[in-house]
Amino acid sequence: MRKLIVVLCLLMLPGVAFGATVSKETQSCLNCHRGFTPGIVADWENSLHSKTLPDEAIEKPKAGRRISAETVPDRFKHVVVGCYECHGQHTDKHKDNFTHFGFSINVVVSPNDCNTCHPTEVAQYTPSKKAQAVGNLLKNPVYHTLVDTIIGPQEVDGTTITHQQPSDYTKQDACFACHGTTIEVLGMKERKTPLGTIQVPDLKNWPNQGVGRINPDGTKGACTSCHPRHSFSIEIARKPETCGQCHLEPDVPAYNVYKASKHGNIYEVDKDHWDFKAVPWRIGTDFTAPTCAVCHVSELAAPDGGILVERSHDFASRLWVRLFGLIYTHPQPKNGDTSIIKNADGLPLPTTFTGKPASEYLIGPDEQAVRKNRMTTVCKQCHSTSWVDAHFAKMDNTIKETDHMTLQATKLLQYAWDHGLAKGIPQGANPFDEAIEQKWIKQWLFYGNTARYASAMTGAQDYVAFKYGWWGLTTNLEKMREEIEMKEAIKKLEESSADKTEQGSAE
Amino acid sequence: MRKLIVVLCLLMLPGVAFGATVSKETQSCLNCHRGFTPGIVADWENSLHSKTLPDEAIEKPKAGRRISAETVPDRFKHVVVGCYECHGQHTDKHKDNFTHFGFSINVVVSPNDCNTCHPTEVAQYTPSKKAQAVGNLLKNPVYHTLVDTIIGPQEVDGTTITHQQPSDYTKQDACFACHGTTIEVLGMKERKTPLGTIQVPDLKNWPNQGVGRINPDGTKGACTSCHPRHSFSIEIARKPETCGQCHLEPDVPAYNVYKASKHGNIYEVDKDHWDFKAVPWRIGTDFTAPTCAVCHVSELAAPDGGILVERSHDFASRLWVRLFGLIYTHPQPKNGDTSIIKNADGLPLPTTFTGKPASEYLIGPDEQAVRKNRMTTVCKQCHSTSWVDAHFAKMDNTIKETDHMTLQATKLLQYAWDHGLAKGIPQGANPFDEAIEQKWIKQWLFYGNTARYASAMTGAQDYVAFKYGWWGLTTNLEKMREEIEMKEAIKKLEESSADKTEQGSAE
Amino acid sequence: MRKLIVVLCLLMLPGVAFGATVSKETQSCLNCHRGFTPGIVADWENSLHSKTLPDEAIEKPKAGRRISAETVPDRFKHVVVGCYECHGQHTDKHKDNFTHFGFSINVVVSPNDCNTCHPTEVAQYTPSKKAQAVGNLLKNPVYHTLVDTIIGPQEVDGTTITHQQPSDYTKQDACFACHGTTIEVLGMKERKTPLGTIQVPDLKNWPNQGVGRINPDGTKGACTSCHPRHSFSIEIARKPETCGQCHLEPDVPAYNVYKASKHGNIYEVDKDHWDFKAVPWRIGTDFTAPTCAVCHVSELAAPDGGILVERSHDFASRLWVRLFGLIYTHPQPKNGDTSIIKNADGLPLPTTFTGKPASEYLIGPDEQAVRKNRMTTVCKQCHSTSWVDAHFAKMDNTIKETDHMTLQATKLLQYAWDHGLAKGIPQGANPFDEAIEQKWIKQWLFYGNTARYASAMTGAQDYVAFKYGWWGLTTNLEKMREEIEMKEAIKKLEESSADKTEQGSAE
Repeated sequence: MRKLIVVLCLLMLPGVAFGATVSKETQSCLNCHRGFTPGIVADWENSLHSKTLPDEAIEKPKAGRRISAETVPDRFKHVVVGCYECHGQHTDKHKDNFTHFGFSINVVVSPNDCNTCHPTEVAQYTPSKKAQAVGNLLKNPVYHTLVDTIIGPQEVDGTTITHQQPSDYTKQDACFACHGTTIEVLGMKERKTPLGTIQVPDLKNWPNQGVGRINPDGTKGACTSCHPRHSFSIEIARKPETCGQCHLEPDVPAYNVYKASKHGNIYEVDKDHWDFKAVPWRIGTDFTAPTCAVCHVSELAAPDGGILVERSHDFASRLWVRLFGLIYTHPQPKNGDTSIIKNADGLPLPTTFTGKPASEYLIGPDEQAVRKNRMTTVCKQCHSTSWVDAHFAKMDNTIKETDHMTLQATKLLQYAWDHGLAKGIPQGANPFDEAIEQKWIKQWLFYGNTARYASAMTGAQDYVAFKYGWWGLTTNLEKMREEIEMKEAIKKLEESSADKTEQGSAE
Repeated sequence: MRKLIVVLCLLMLPGVAFGATVSKETQSCLNCHRGFTPGIVADWENSLHSKTLPDEAIEKPKAGRRISAETVPDRFKHVVVGCYECHGQHTDKHKDNFTHFGFSINVVVSPNDCNTCHPTEVAQYTPSKKAQAVGNLLKNPVYHTLVDTIIGPQEVDGTTITHQQPSDYTKQDACFACHGTTIEVLGMKERKTPLGTIQVPDLKNWPNQGVGRINPDGTKGACTSCHPRHSFSIEIARKPETCGQCHLEPDVPAYNVYKASKHGNIYEVDKDHWDFKAVPWRIGTDFTAPTCAVCHVSELAAPDGGILVERSHDFASRLWVRLFGLIYTHPQPKNGDTSIIKNADGLPLPTTFTGKPASEYLIGPDEQAVRKNRMTTVCKQCHSTSWVDAHFAKMDNTIKETDHMTLQATKLLQYAWDHGLAKGIPQGANPFDEAIEQKWIKQWLFYGNTARYASAMTGAQDYVAFKYGWWGLTTNLEKMREEIEMKEAIKKLEESSADKTEQGSAE
Repeated sequence: MRKLIVVLCLLMLPGVAFGATVSKETQSCLNCHRGFTPGIVADWENSLHSKTLPDEAIEKPKAGRRISAETVPDRFKHVVVGCYECHGQHTDKHKDNFTHFGFSINVVVSPNDCNTCHPTEVAQYTPSKKAQAVGNLLKNPVYHTLVDTIIGPQEVDGTTITHQQPSDYTKQDACFACHGTTIEVLGMKERKTPLGTIQVPDLKNWPNQGVGRINPDGTKGACTSCHPRHSFSIEIARKPETCGQCHLEPDVPAYNVYKASKHGNIYEVDKDHWDFKAVPWRIGTDFTAPTCAVCHVSELAAPDGGILVERSHDFASRLWVRLFGLIYTHPQPKNGDTSIIKNADGLPLPTTFTGKPASEYLIGPDEQAVRKNRMTTVCKQCHSTSWVDAHFAKMDNTIKETDHMTLQATKLLQYAWDHGLAKGIPQGANPFDEAIEQKWIKQWLFYGNTARYASAMTGAQDYVAFKYGWWGLTTNLEKMREEIEMKEAIKKLEESSADKTEQGSAE
């Protein structure tokens, strides 16, 4: 079969034509790639893109439209959205552009390319925290130090551990697999193929589908994080397993908590009866319990089709408080670029070490009320106002108490630093590289976050109680205390022993 | 649309009639709530309740009946089971009763309300451990202390940690989310609605669907734990994800263990071909591997429909040994109210600290044999007697050995208490608040339980071996030993140092 | 109904005949077992075995054949594959053979029995690591010591812990549940049945479906590990939950990592639209993302049916490097029997303590290239060559760095041994039974393995970063260092105190 493909490709004959509305460039792509990468072609053939003419899609009623552009350039209007329509756009802006069997092609499709048909989504996404996820980690020296401490290889000499800079590969494999990498074009490289030696771009930090990926055209984000290539399925994006790739225990256990909640329980046992492709998405008719997308992203409608909540690809648009402690919870930041935040101590953090919020950079009560109202509108389609109010009152209390437990851990850490039992901020040393410091990280990053996420998605009680939640908060505090106690006792004994030795010498 | 609902509601016009057999009260509920809480109405419309006339349901053959009443009051006979039929019962007994647009309504539907149609299930459930789950935790001073120690906020001062009482909200969020809360009616509160200001009951410890919830009518239990509102689906109750909300790692990892077992494996890959709604439920025809409900609750039939095992909503009716160590395994308690148990040392525990069972309160060998026979009857539909016998012989050995490992940990803890390395029962101090005590808790609550649950559902070998099982039992013991050794060494050094200082002073 | 079965069985009447092509022996089995073990009969009735005549199956085109024999003995040709066809073979070789109501029956069906129809699969499987899984654990004194240390019951006396030999039951329940047990026939035992007292074999270490089970006919392996009785479904074997029974966190978290990866995400949300029974299995048509079987076992075809990759039941045939560290990664062993391996220090391990591979026993670069090419052929059906190359370059780096992190932990352990802080290899003591040694085990067995598995199945970033991955590698190293530091400080104080006491005595 390979031989046939080669002949077909070399002759640039039409091959198996997909349909009358496929552009001739895309048809050329399909001719070869149907043989070389059949999985990609099959995914695309199963997608809406392969069946949709933009000029017809635009004519649909607004509530059911998947295309948000009011018009598209002429060349896209009457052909389905094929290989070349996406990979052949804005070629002058793409450093990853190259000539591939006569076609000018970009390796990476960026949000700016998707923007041709989906400008509303791109406009909502681009300023959001997700799109800024690389800079929010790298431009913040505190977070950057944490990254380097944890994923950098270490060198042991005797009982001394020296931390080295993490490699680009490990960054790509760990933190930046979710946050996104900065894709760099190093040049061109040769590759031998059945069609002869070809030249392809040599990309660094690729492949990557992190939410804040910095693309070779300078744009930020990867729509494929949630709408994976090449089916771009709304069903996949709406199912919680997609979110679960990044939002996992122990640091951001939203997906684990969801699965253990009543909502997750109903999703899991009832989902086969739901319609994950319907737009608009009707409560009680198309689905009977929320998924991540229902609460945070999707356009929702009543059973009669009337729109109840608007879609937004700014994932914070229905969030008023940031449950993710850094190190304490705080109102959502005003700007998706959180690297600009400075707390009262001048550190790039949304709160001080004792919990004072950097309010100037965070949304105020009015905006909080607007966003909370968006979320509770979703809740109230299935729950009474009393129920919803009581739920969030409980969550507010859990926020307060878990932040309190972080403060207590911080007091113990400060005691260790102050009494020479560890070296951190007061000593100008790395605050993340010693055992007691790493226990402290667990207090807010694993245990506090878990209890709060589980409270927010009520029903995941084991995550509040025993799995990373209160059991962790309480026993971790006691572990920190005991470590301090033992180290302090040893230190005093050493000092006393040194005194006596000195006295002995002096005598 | 909201405006239309308001007009419709105010005029109390019939609106979209659901069907001729809906009571006129329920029709009034639907008129408004179809607009205000469409998710609830849709769930109910998808339910059997919305399609079932009790007097017709009672006529069905016994094996296939879902209603266990032999007769129901006249007013329920000829209408489907709608909003008012459930929320409008026994209004004089409900402290949460209120007048809502002219109707006398209870917020919470209790087992006593479900009892009208489902008396057998309520009679089985009410005396069981599940229905007593609140008192079993709160009335037992030992367990109560454990709860308070783990989920109460703490205060750090220097290196001293002071434990405070947990808040009602955190209790509701953690332990009592599963066990159930005591719902209290604080009074009435005002709520602004599109239909004007209304009065609704102000409930404390609500919402909650814990299995032992104490309801405003004084009854115990929440049928909605497993049959969630408002679909009350038998399919949901029969699927293990429902049980998995509470029976999760690390303390009662039945669901995690099930998923990793061969039975769970077959369920997960084959369930789409099963019929989860069939009553009776036929082995091999309707399902091909057990779920939690198959082994513990459901009425099971042969492929030809002959009943093999009777349904019971007393979840211990097929259980002879309690794998859940407190701190050791023991025969199932005679009474669902376990707070009455006293061991030989006078403590409210089913065994002593060294493992002697409080036999007076526990079922004897004859009743154990009866219950074991019920369970093995299920097993033997797919496994030979030799297979089943060997399986439970293996489990018995795992019970014996894990209890032995708990005893070893208890000996180490006792050593620490006896040698002044921790303060617990001998000192009249909290036995749960120090690091070594918390390691001891893990021995029986996390590691022993996990190994036993995994042994009981054979095939979940990683839970026996590495995930919370034997790896935990063994390495935790060594951690306890090392902690004792280091603390003892420091103590001796301190004593020796104090001696020398005294000697020095004395000289 | 039971009574009817008894009568039917005693009379040996035909009962409910299954079909004209059932052998008369199998029909006799069905007559009784349809009543006694209806689940088994139903599973078989749903299976292909109950519908397949070997002589017809053999005639199918090669790519779609499930039977690999070119011919079968006459007595199997014209009857479906029923009870007696499998349990009645090679009776002279089976120590578990017995006479059961007049029929000569084996309890256990072994690979040699399956070999009649599936010789290619048995020939591939038998020499593989999986089939040798019992000996690979038991014949290796290092691994054997680890097993004994972790799952043997322990005895505490004061602060001394004594390790005892694990029981056969616990071995069967833990490690050997996956690896397989050695089934022994102890003799015959009596069993009372409704048909009178019968004699059945008394088997030790049974039931068991471990991959390397040693059967009563001397053969190795249990096909039922992945093709569970009595449906023997290809759908079950192809779904990852089956592999997940053994390949679970924390030691070999392949299944957990898969679920968190993009491939696992797509499987989970899209699998209902796939055809898990199609042979050959067409990429993009029958499935749209890989499962474990796709990458490691199955025959794969292009959408047009052309075979791309051959099936192999040697699960290492597409693997060139062994990610599972013992204690470091290494090329796959040449021989499935790894107990023959000796490293440069004479230990039965594939690498030395400092990482030097025992190359003589491991595949070389040429064979590695062949196997890697098989795997990348799978990848390239959906990914470009550049993508695939970059993916494996990243994995290679993660292998290198995690092995480096294991080496650092090994250096710390060696320091502890050398400075009298723990007793291990230099002292001729158990290297697995002390707290610091058990931390060292976690470094390579839990953390290193997890980071590598997650890197290999890109997209499971939380397992690389926080869940058992780098967070574990880094913080565990720091815990080891701190433990050494504290123990060393205490040791010095004790020595100094002893010196002074001596001096005091001397004075």
